Amino acid sequence: MLLEQRQKLLFIGDSVTDCDRAKPHGEGLFHALGNGYVSVVDAFLKANYPELGIRVVNKGISGNTVRDLKARWQEDVITQNPDWLSIMIGINDVWRQFDSPFIKDHHVYIEEYQETLTALVKESKLQTENILLMTPYYIEINENDLMRAKMDQYGKVVKQIAEEEGCLFIDTQAAFNKILKNLYAATIAWDRVHPNEIGHTILAKAFLNKIGFDWTK
Amino acid sequence: MLLEQRQKLLFIGDSVTDCDRAKPHGEGLFHALGNGYVSVVDAFLKANYPELGIRVVNKGISGNTVRDLKARWQEDVITQNPDWLSIMIGINDVWRQFDSPFIKDHHVYIEEYQETLTALVKESKLQTENILLMTPYYIEINENDLMRAKMDQYGKVVKQIAEEEGCLFIDTQAAFNKILKNLYAATIAWDRVHPNEIGHTILAKAFLNKIGFDWTK
Amino acid sequence: MLLEQRQKLLFIGDSVTDCDRAKPHGEGLFHALGNGYVSVVDAFLKANYPELGIRVVNKGISGNTVRDLKARWQEDVITQNPDWLSIMIGINDVWRQFDSPFIKDHHVYIEEYQETLTALVKESKLQTENILLMTPYYIEINENDLMRAKMDQYGKVVKQIAEEEGCLFIDTQAAFNKILKNLYAATIAWDRVHPNEIGHTILAKAFLNKIGFDWTK
Amino acid sequence: MLLEQRQKLLFIGDSVTDCDRAKPHGEGLFHALGNGYVSVVDAFLKANYPELGIRVVNKGISGNTVRDLKARWQEDVITQNPDWLSIMIGINDVWRQFDSPFIKDHHVYIEEYQETLTALVKESKLQTENILLMTPYYIEINENDLMRAKMDQYGKVVKQIAEEEGCLFIDTQAAFNKILKNLYAATIAWDRVHPNEIGHTILAKAFLNKIGFDWTK
Amino acid sequence: MLLEQRQKLLFIGDSVTDCDRAKPHGEGLFHALGNGYVSVVDAFLKANYPELGIRVVNKGISGNTVRDLKARWQEDVITQNPDWLSIMIGINDVWRQFDSPFIKDHHVYIEEYQETLTALVKESKLQTENILLMTPYYIEINENDLMRAKMDQYGKVVKQIAEEEGCLFIDTQAAFNKILKNLYAATIAWDRVHPNEIGHTILAKAFLNKIGFDWTK
Amino acid sequence: MLLEQRQKLLFIGDSVTDCDRAKPHGEGLFHALGNGYVSVVDAFLKANYPELGIRVVNKGISGNTVRDLKARWQEDVITQNPDWLSIMIGINDVWRQFDSPFIKDHHVYIEEYQETLTALVKESKLQTENILLMTPYYIEINENDLMRAKMDQYGKVVKQIAEEEGCLFIDTQAAFNKILKNLYAATIAWDRVHPNEIGHTILAKAFLNKIGFDWTK
Amino acid sequence: MLLEQRQKLLFIGDSVTDCDRAKPHGEGLFHALGNGYVSVVDAFLKANYPELGIRVVNKGISGNTVRDLKARWQEDVITQNPDWLSIMIGINDVWRQFDSPFIKDHHVYIEEYQETLTALVKESKLQTENILLMTPYYIEINENDLMRAKMDQYGKVVKQIAEEEGCLFIDTQAAFNKILKNLYAATIAWDRVHPNEIGHTILAKAFLNKIGFDWTK
Amino acid sequence: MLLEQRQKLLFIGDSVTDCDRAKPHGEGLFHALGNGYVSVVDAFLKANYPELGIRVVNKGISGNTVRDLKARWQEDVITQNPDWLSIMIGINDVWRQFDSPFIKDHHVYIEEYQETLTALVKESKLQTENILLMTPYYIEINENDLMRAKMDQYGKVVKQIAEEEGCLFIDTQAAFNKILKNLYAATIAWDRVHPNEIGHTILAKAFLNKIGFDWTK
Repeated sequence: MLLEQRQKLLFIGDSVTDCDRAKPHGEGLFHALGNGYVSVVDAFLKANYPELGIRVVNKGISGNTVRDLKARWQEDVITQNPDWLSIMIGINDVWRQFDSPFIKDHHVYIEEYQETLTALVKESKLQTENILLMTPYYIEINENDLMRAKMDQYGKVVKQIAEEEGCLFIDTQAAFNKILKNLYAATIAWDRVHPNEIGHTILAKAFLNKIGFDWTK
Repeated sequence: MLLEQRQKLLFIGDSVTDCDRAKPHGEGLFHALGNGYVSVVDAFLKANYPELGIRVVNKGISGNTVRDLKARWQEDVITQNPDWLSIMIGINDVWRQFDSPFIKDHHVYIEEYQETLTALVKESKLQTENILLMTPYYIEINENDLMRAKMDQYGKVVKQIAEEEGCLFIDTQAAFNKILKNLYAATIAWDRVHPNEIGHTILAKAFLNKIGFDWTK
Repeated sequence: MLLEQRQKLLFIGDSVTDCDRAKPHGEGLFHALGNGYVSVVDAFLKANYPELGIRVVNKGISGNTVRDLKARWQEDVITQNPDWLSIMIGINDVWRQFDSPFIKDHHVYIEEYQETLTALVKESKLQTENILLMTPYYIEINENDLMRAKMDQYGKVVKQIAEEEGCLFIDTQAAFNKILKNLYAATIAWDRVHPNEIGHTILAKAFLNKIGFDWTK
Repeated sequence: MLLEQRQKLLFIGDSVTDCDRAKPHGEGLFHALGNGYVSVVDAFLKANYPELGIRVVNKGISGNTVRDLKARWQEDVITQNPDWLSIMIGINDVWRQFDSPFIKDHHVYIEEYQETLTALVKESKLQTENILLMTPYYIEINENDLMRAKMDQYGKVVKQIAEEEGCLFIDTQAAFNKILKNLYAATIAWDRVHPNEIGHTILAKAFLNKIGFDWTK
Repeated sequence: MLLEQRQKLLFIGDSVTDCDRAKPHGEGLFHALGNGYVSVVDAFLKANYPELGIRVVNKGISGNTVRDLKARWQEDVITQNPDWLSIMIGINDVWRQFDSPFIKDHHVYIEEYQETLTALVKESKLQTENILLMTPYYIEINENDLMRAKMDQYGKVVKQIAEEEGCLFIDTQAAFNKILKNLYAATIAWDRVHPNEIGHTILAKAFLNKIGFDWTK
Repeated sequence: MLLEQRQKLLFIGDSVTDCDRAKPHGEGLFHALGNGYVSVVDAFLKANYPELGIRVVNKGISGNTVRDLKARWQEDVITQNPDWLSIMIGINDVWRQFDSPFIKDHHVYIEEYQETLTALVKESKLQTENILLMTPYYIEINENDLMRAKMDQYGKVVKQIAEEEGCLFIDTQAAFNKILKNLYAATIAWDRVHPNEIGHTILAKAFLNKIGFDWTK
Repeated sequence: MLLEQRQKLLFIGDSVTDCDRAKPHGEGLFHALGNGYVSVVDAFLKANYPELGIRVVNKGISGNTVRDLKARWQEDVITQNPDWLSIMIGINDVWRQFDSPFIKDHHVYIEEYQETLTALVKESKLQTENILLMTPYYIEINENDLMRAKMDQYGKVVKQIAEEEGCLFIDTQAAFNKILKNLYAATIAWDRVHPNEIGHTILAKAFLNKIGFDWTK
Repeated sequence: MLLEQRQKLLFIGDSVTDCDRAKPHGEGLFHALGNGYVSVVDAFLKANYPELGIRVVNKGISGNTVRDLKARWQEDVITQNPDWLSIMIGINDVWRQFDSPFIKDHHVYIEEYQETLTALVKESKLQTENILLMTPYYIEINENDLMRAKMDQYGKVVKQIAEEEGCLFIDTQAAFNKILKNLYAATIAWDRVHPNEIGHTILAKAFLNKIGFDWTK
């Protein structure tokens, strides 16, 4: 496993990360990590590696785009000084283009997305080399679906940044694609975005596999 | 316009019809018709034909399948003795097959759907010849999407029953397909089923056009 | 239709415009436009002209008089820079004179009304020539009713300003008068001011007809 | 004063009488008499004639018509065996004809009204001669207003029954007409039916004056 | 009647005056005057003298002592510039000495009470000569009761100030004493302080009688 | 101490006993004994005599009179088969005569009180000789107060029954009288009936002293 | 993996199983399986074996003992006819002996526990051979702790029944013991019974491992 | 008894002291002292020594450590200027080390604890010599339990400070240890920290005994 004793792992992102986590701290007693993939990751880290004492912090905020992350990066990431940083952002950047097509100010187009996300990663690399980039996703099997196609483009940007900046790359879209061969999207998420427990487990599995988690421990 | 003075028009269906209508009566003061297409239809009937005094009743119930309609047909339709009867059912019959694939008891397959809906229409024809059948729909442009394809099959059943039983036929799927050429599905409904005001207006327009409504009156 | 592609249409007014719209933005997801005539207008614009992509913003606030509009004109109108601006104000200016006759500070008399509304229109004309003035109204058929008579005077002021400043003029009182020949006021509004869905449809129709809306599209 | 020591005075009616009184008993601690004219009457009876110990019971129920009174007359009036009985009913009998004109089943026309009210009075006369009939009213000064005119007809029926059956007659419409010379209807009730404290005081005064209440005591 | 056309009458006091009045204005629509004696006074002023158009404002705040009144006198009285000012204060000044005997800071002893109330009256006399002083009270018939006896002392201070400063004096204790001959205290107020509708009517009657109200008008 | 190992002690009474205890069982986890004197008694029994394992059950119900106890005696006392039974009833029997003087049906006069309480005690004596009778009380120092005097009469009835039936007698009025020499009634209960923690402690002390509780244990 | 295509897996137990699952069905949309180990098991079954389509039902009810299970076995287990049945019961049977030591009726002692659980297993074996017995547990590392020691005895009963009846046996206490070497009990559950996400993950892991779940699939 | 007439006794601490006390004052009407040991102490002081008039103030805040006390010492203790000061702090200082072992910032280790508590005591000694130090506790009988052992160390620090600074010392752990010989911990507190009424009574008894309280008074 890549994580070492007493390290701090910070997740940041949108509603998929947030999942009703405790505000503002995002850690502590009473379900402070929310009820999504962050909580699943934390529970398995503690259950399988209790001796490591990994500290997990959730800084997701519902509705956030990368533009919103930029505005709070200093407070919510830099001052936290994490050993590991996981970023999953972009769903709202794309979604608003499709559910609010006429409110242009709410859209974050791909150039701004790429530029902003790159800058945030670069800034955090001054603190840690251990950055994980999770792609945004759309739980839709049809690659020609307009929003899925757009989301794939943003996903490619994430992959490119991961390669350029030496981050660990987690292809959440690929993880969902695999399950979509057997389950229709609505089994996981009515709106193709906010997953139920099955979907959050898929995200957690993708994350844990990437950091070399030993499931049989 | 097909409706005549003092006639009663009754809508029955699922959550798309229900829209938080008053229970159990489905008519009266204080938004008793709910906030969906039934309310839009009523408001335009009153606004354009106040002299006709059409009485509108909403008997939609969220989550209903045609199996549920059968169980309450006597109480909610027959004893109401409507002059006009509009039925839109089938979305949940199909949806449960896709969002709860392993709970077979919640599925209403196409044979039961056809048989039940036909029986209900036949029973109501003893009261009135003025029956409108609205297809179920799925706000998804891709005809090869599994749930859309299944919904189309149920829609064809509705069309067939309408032809056999001499009902007015309203193709709601076609109405949504037209708008989907310009607007992505998420602009109308995150879950492709429960529409916002735009979607309910599309349903109301399809209904009103079918009954010969004069918009310029 | 007068509105062109990608234009922004802003409504401002009192509770009839507000209708529980999202504060402070007045646009976006989840019924942000409220449940009144603004929402009906928006839904029909999207349903009949999806290719135009009109952006609708609702800045109504319950209880407002023209004096209140003045106080927030800079923030809620000017900085929004709309292509089309629709103003319906005056009901509370008059109503307080009749329901709170002894609290003079809550009354906005006709001189202040005319002066203030004129100034606001003039200020907005620096931004756009496309201004629609909707009269205040009182859903009361008796022209000799004291409050109806007073409201008519305020309506005449609106008409005069529209003519002087070259605005489109919408006579909402006339629209209600027409329906009142067939329906008693209480069918539309118990208090003769806050309409139900029928009344909001009448307002929306008056607005859409004025901008050359094609209902049969 | 007509009422004598230890007598029970029972009020029955619709929402104007109800005013959130305690259900089902309509008497007792904690504002059990509601916050309308019944409470004002009781408070003045206790304040001016504490030595009499009049027992006041409120059996009003919102939305009731005379048809509803009939259904509960046995339980809510006869078994209570009051010494004095005050009835104010008819507003909803009329109002539904004007706010829900197309739902005929909710209307109570004048023949049924007269017949039913007469029967109830006759039945109660077997218990007590002390019956007060209060007219329904509509707080609208224009006698030619359709609903006011209709309400006046129902009021005449009440007057006729009072004369035929030897009841005390209270003309609430006349009481409101007097105040409407100085105050516009909206100062008392936005919907011309549910009065504020001013209107309930007018009703209480009319009642108390009829029973020979000494205000200066 | 002492009050003249269009005059403003302001009440200030503690919870007995407050009675859930609208904050902060204390006047306007929707039961803004609360549900205590102020509302009764207002309703009778409007019902009997609608032509006068008296404006009533309620500035009571629960729990207040004269020390609290002093802190808000400028904002809640002076800037309101009333034509008539009614003050009822002192119950909490005394009550805290009896229900919280060991928290001395919450007590307002008689010297501070007299000094403060005198100063407030003097300050307001610069605006208006029409000041009514209502005594605090305790709904307890036993004059030797410790709290009743103390309250009587505060009442005497009020009387003295009224005489010295030429204010109208209303002896609320005397008004309650009279009714207590027939009704036990608990019939009016379980805690001997917060009256039900009977008690508020007694207060309103005492006030209205003092200003020459004509009940038979 | 009179109570022996594993005995069950059941309290029955009105709101003073109830104090929001768990319904219907009146024992168990999560403050099931309510927050009044029963809970204080239980806590001290457990704290000082943990080895005895006394089981305490609370069957108080707010508003009850002895007439109400009679109606539920079989279910709430007899079937519980307690080793010790404590009864405190009568406050509402008296109070209703003073706060609702004109609603005679709510009064339980002293003959009915004595007869009913005697019958209940006799019935329970078939099960256990360990019955404690607590007097009703009124936290008012003035013996000539009408309600206090009446309560004293009921208290004497309790004493008489205790003597006749061989029950332990607890004079709660005497316990309050003692503290009233130093504290005014309002320090313990605004309404002279529902005590705060001080008053419940006084009741618990009186009870515990009667059963020979060793405070210094 | 032991489970085969389309099989139904039913969990029954107490609050640890319940976890706010949907009542009464225990399956379906919207987190119907609750937020405990049942949900984790279901999510991993769906995520790793979507092609199997396992149907999971949760019939846990908070506070249940084996006595409660017996009362609802017919309705909640037998009529459900599951292919796999998992039972975890006994915590409350023991806990009540320690948190409510004096309320003997709430205790289920080991003889009744063994007899009842055996009978339930025998009854269900007529339907299916696939029964899993999970031990009750107490998250306390000290084996000499009185409640832990008692819980271990109940666990041994479960083991014995599993062996006698040929059930799969899951030692949840052993699973917790392992983690307790690294984490203090309070990290998993303040009350040593209701676990947080870490504890539920430990339970789910123990279950999944027993049925041959392939974590790396 | 050590406390003298009119003295102020202030309690400060964490959730065990807080118990939903009124914020911010911590004294006054309506259960302002919360429902824990502070309230029990106050009630017995008032019940047994009403003539002394001891003023009790509760400044406990849930979740506090000694670090939090330091931050509010000036406002919540010094400016209150109490005659007697009781401090019970340390449970959270220890607990966080056991329930949140990986969030080091939430831990207050023993050096910081000792240093901070000593400083606070020294500062308060400038005001009063009457300081009571209550140990933190853990309701766990096993002295080798890791958290109990740690809590004992903190308790020893409290004892040492009490001796060095001349404070009264209350060994709450010893008080609980005594009862734990007869009652299992869960009978007093499921989480071994937040006691029910039995536990709060034990704390109150320990406190009252230390100040020479006469229970038989």
